Amino acid sequence: MKIGVIGGGQLGRMLALAGTPLGQQFAFLDPAPDACAQALGEHIRADYSDRDHLRQLADEVDVVTFEFESVPADTVAFLSQYVPVYPNAESLRIARDRWFEKSLFRELDIPTPAFADIQSQADLDAAVASIGLPAVMKTRTLGYDGKGQKVLRTAADVGGAFAELGNVPCILEGFVPFSGEVSLIAVRARDGETRFYPLVHNTHEDGILRLSVASSAHPLQALAEEYVGRVLNKLDYVGVLAFEFFEIDGGLKANEIAPRVHNSGHWTIEGAECSQFENHLRAIAGLPLGSTTKVGESAMLNCIGSVPPVEQLTAIPYCHLHHYGKAFKVGRKVGHATVRCSDQASLKATIATVDTLLAKQGDPAAH
Amino acid sequence: MKIGVIGGGQLGRMLALAGTPLGQQFAFLDPAPDACAQALGEHIRADYSDRDHLRQLADEVDVVTFEFESVPADTVAFLSQYVPVYPNAESLRIARDRWFEKSLFRELDIPTPAFADIQSQADLDAAVASIGLPAVMKTRTLGYDGKGQKVLRTAADVGGAFAELGNVPCILEGFVPFSGEVSLIAVRARDGETRFYPLVHNTHEDGILRLSVASSAHPLQALAEEYVGRVLNKLDYVGVLAFEFFEIDGGLKANEIAPRVHNSGHWTIEGAECSQFENHLRAIAGLPLGSTTKVGESAMLNCIGSVPPVEQLTAIPYCHLHHYGKAFKVGRKVGHATVRCSDQASLKATIATVDTLLAKQGDPAAH
Repeated sequence: MKIGVIGGGQLGRMLALAGTPLGQQFAFLDPAPDACAQALGEHIRADYSDRDHLRQLADEVDVVTFEFESVPADTVAFLSQYVPVYPNAESLRIARDRWFEKSLFRELDIPTPAFADIQSQADLDAAVASIGLPAVMKTRTLGYDGKGQKVLRTAADVGGAFAELGNVPCILEGFVPFSGEVSLIAVRARDGETRFYPLVHNTHEDGILRLSVASSAHPLQALAEEYVGRVLNKLDYVGVLAFEFFEIDGGLKANEIAPRVHNSGHWTIEGAECSQFENHLRAIAGLPLGSTTKVGESAMLNCIGSVPPVEQLTAIPYCHLHHYGKAFKVGRKVGHATVRCSDQASLKATIATVDTLLAKQGDPAAH
Repeated sequence: MKIGVIGGGQLGRMLALAGTPLGQQFAFLDPAPDACAQALGEHIRADYSDRDHLRQLADEVDVVTFEFESVPADTVAFLSQYVPVYPNAESLRIARDRWFEKSLFRELDIPTPAFADIQSQADLDAAVASIGLPAVMKTRTLGYDGKGQKVLRTAADVGGAFAELGNVPCILEGFVPFSGEVSLIAVRARDGETRFYPLVHNTHEDGILRLSVASSAHPLQALAEEYVGRVLNKLDYVGVLAFEFFEIDGGLKANEIAPRVHNSGHWTIEGAECSQFENHLRAIAGLPLGSTTKVGESAMLNCIGSVPPVEQLTAIPYCHLHHYGKAFKVGRKVGHATVRCSDQASLKATIATVDTLLAKQGDPAAH
């Protein structure tokens, strides 16, 4: 079976590393000449709306999937005429727009911060009056890694904020005094079977994920599965979906979904019986889902901007390097390390060791 | 770092799957147009003695390694002028010739079956008179998977046997009434550090490996490590080496070595902290060695001739498929399954389940 992937970055690369042993072949459509997945499959270098090359991809592969959610709707619709596309167009439509996303949460009775649609500065002023401050303003589409966001703390931050974010449709979200951020990685098969990985605790810095730690018997696991299951079934979703929550007062408030394999699930390569990448491929290929059970205790640390010297990372016991083969660049995710241990104490100690090495290396931003 | 591999079959493919996350790139020199490693790197399609293309490979990569031991000595010598080559020429010279190999065992006081060099039918007659029957006659070079061998049980088998094996240099080995076959996968770094995986019990059928089961606290582990360590140090070996032994009377007799990653070590992909493939690459790249500790209880079953339907293999819990992407063909290794469980009882049960599926599928030979 040949899999077409829209996007040829590290997610495509890790999909191919997981799918090759299943006998799958890969083609990546990505305009970047240095798309890092190209080492593992065919690289169709073209724009995401280039119909000739989209048609070529559709003709070559058995199924198409996506590395990112901001694919133009026209692209998805066009491809869907020729080849099965997972996740489906409706899932992508919802996930790429924060307004649709939050509205779906509300429709499905999933708690989420107060929110309002912002089409103008006047909308913003009215929403602030209703929701209050502090609040977070986010572009409805195309935001990632903290980009396209502005925290509004005082009235002074509100004036001109709509123009500051580019005069594009936004939402305003009430600020949530959360005690932690968790994500649930789920996978749903074509026949509707659904499996969930253990909840992951996430730590962000400057809006970018730094550390994910897989939990054990988290008290909110069942509740999170209930919420995520509602979304998966409503969308008739196929593949892996990541659902981010704020943890607050012993409950959960939905933050956002990503209709794809997700950074907070990278630990599953070593840390779960079957990784999120293999399970996504199993789902879209119509294969039985794999086990989402943990193997030991695991965490993932991102390499942001640069990867420390390989001889130093590989010298750390229980540390598994995943180098994306991308050019180093400020704020860019260029690799990650999975730490897998037999117990929590050694996991904690090893996270600290890796973290120290990453901090010493630093982000080229700091230099 | 870019790694050159002579040979582009499944071993090269699995090396690339292990090395890509380390940030390594791969080039494979292989004359076969359908070399299955080509999905994961550059394919230089050329004969193993094609100096222009060998030179091209040497110029492109940082280090060269081998997927098989029967590489012509000239190829190794030629490459060594331009690029580091691991394992070294002497290791390959020894490992590709059963006479040199057995002679080295004798020199290093490693028990091995009685053996004799056979250059003619007269040599064979004399050796049979001295060693006795039953005995096994093997070509000195180029034998694998039971090919290039003949068991001599009675005097009638001896007459004409030299011609039957092609009038090429052979050795005669005394038959060993072994109770089991085990192999030790070892890795030695450039600085001489050496690590060993747990001993593996191997089961062959028709000369082809069918099943490998990783042992736990095997009573002969220390003895095997002692023997293998002698060979590694004598050869100043760098990389992974597999050493096959006969188990007999609570002791070991050396059978043969393979100067490369080995089929009986494939279980380490899921079953060890760091796989034989990653450890081979770490060794030849001058990186620190990874842990050879087991993760759970593991076994490997070969898919010979064909791979069962992927949807059936992936439906078996604890079973991990490794499809080589090769054309199915009688007697050909086209994939394997790793079974990894938390305990021996479920390992045994899962091996039986996979084995039944493989038997049902069968070798196309049977059809």
